[in-house]
Amino acid sequence: MTEPDPESDPDSDPESAPDPDSAPDPDSTASFVVSTDRRTQAVDVTDRVEAVLPAEAQGTATVFVRHTTAGVAVNEAEPRLLGDVETFLDDVVADEGWDHDRLDGNADAHLRALLVGASVTVPVDGGSLALGTWQSILLVECDGPRDRTVEVRW
Amino acid sequence: MTEPDPESDPDSDPESAPDPDSAPDPDSTASFVVSTDRRTQAVDVTDRVEAVLPAEAQGTATVFVRHTTAGVAVNEAEPRLLGDVETFLDDVVADEGWDHDRLDGNADAHLRALLVGASVTVPVDGGSLALGTWQSILLVECDGPRDRTVEVRW
Amino acid sequence: MTEPDPESDPDSDPESAPDPDSAPDPDSTASFVVSTDRRTQAVDVTDRVEAVLPAEAQGTATVFVRHTTAGVAVNEAEPRLLGDVETFLDDVVADEGWDHDRLDGNADAHLRALLVGASVTVPVDGGSLALGTWQSILLVECDGPRDRTVEVRW
Repeated sequence: MTEPDPESDPDSDPESAPDPDSAPDPDSTASFVVSTDRRTQAVDVTDRVEAVLPAEAQGTATVFVRHTTAGVAVNEAEPRLLGDVETFLDDVVADEGWDHDRLDGNADAHLRALLVGASVTVPVDGGSLALGTWQSILLVECDGPRDRTVEVRW
Repeated sequence: MTEPDPESDPDSDPESAPDPDSAPDPDSTASFVVSTDRRTQAVDVTDRVEAVLPAEAQGTATVFVRHTTAGVAVNEAEPRLLGDVETFLDDVVADEGWDHDRLDGNADAHLRALLVGASVTVPVDGGSLALGTWQSILLVECDGPRDRTVEVRW
Repeated sequence: MTEPDPESDPDSDPESAPDPDSAPDPDSTASFVVSTDRRTQAVDVTDRVEAVLPAEAQGTATVFVRHTTAGVAVNEAEPRLLGDVETFLDDVVADEGWDHDRLDGNADAHLRALLVGASVTVPVDGGSLALGTWQSILLVECDGPRDRTVEVRW
């Protein structure tokens, strides 16, 4: 196994965290950045998503993470459960032994992100998320700490 | 481990199963309730989804479950396979040992629902689902028996 | 365990791979066929998706596979990582021992496809995919070699 090559690290590339102000169509898209603290971390971003939705947003919104070692999910943001999500993902994918690790040391993070998925599509009514009582939108960091760009389209 | 607190049970809250008649925009959204029988259960809801789509629905529909211990998937509704889905989800997530269980006894159900995902987005043509020959839309109950609200937006 | 019944094989049915030219609405949908080589195989289809998007596509596109033993995901298309995705899916679901195998020999493929998911919804600007720097769209074959129809709606 060779040393990881910093140049090949997908998420250290500044292009992967574009300026939120560069959103191409301010009428139907917006983005925000979440700074994570730990390698695997489930973060409640519901309020951040709701904050970027204009009152005229109606129907559905897609919340998409622009990275390959983080995902987005809908579940309950109870703190102990967020810890369980982290533990489950850490356990279901082996930390080491992957071929990609000869290039980057983070194949496990890619595989955890694949399980979670890169986006969710959720109901929106009049600019407000129309989630169930206990549902929150979770950014699931799998290779933190990093700054993660979350894009919302409606 | 303390006793589960009924007040904290996400899915016993009546607000999590809203009146289907309260859909905010009858032109582009509808919902229906599915009563499940078992703790983990994959249920074919394809006909229920198709029944709420009006003839003018065109493009895609998002099928979303308003709960944190159930999911929605697309796969084949062959009865033995539905049993295999249930067995797989039961086995891939441990039943016990989660921190959230000190609050609720259903962390395993949340984690299974996270793996399945809360929604699917599927093609629709002229009010009919445009699925592949063997595809069905499955509600995946992970903490039944319960009444589950499924929302469809097009 | 009985012999698999070819008649019941979901994906041998020619109807599951419709003629791409039969797309019902050429203004907002298109499809293409991917021929896979191996039983479990992650294939980069980003260029194929982008090729069918017209310049006026704006907002999001949904990429949907019309099959029950293949999925679609967003992740990095680095060749070693694609191999790791295949290895992970092969390992996380047991190859044998499923009830559906008494009918078809491919329950494991259905369960792997369920984990991956049948579709992704991704940002599109002016007919171009607006993915993060390292993101690609992956068709994840779980029961190849086969011809797989991928549908794109925008």
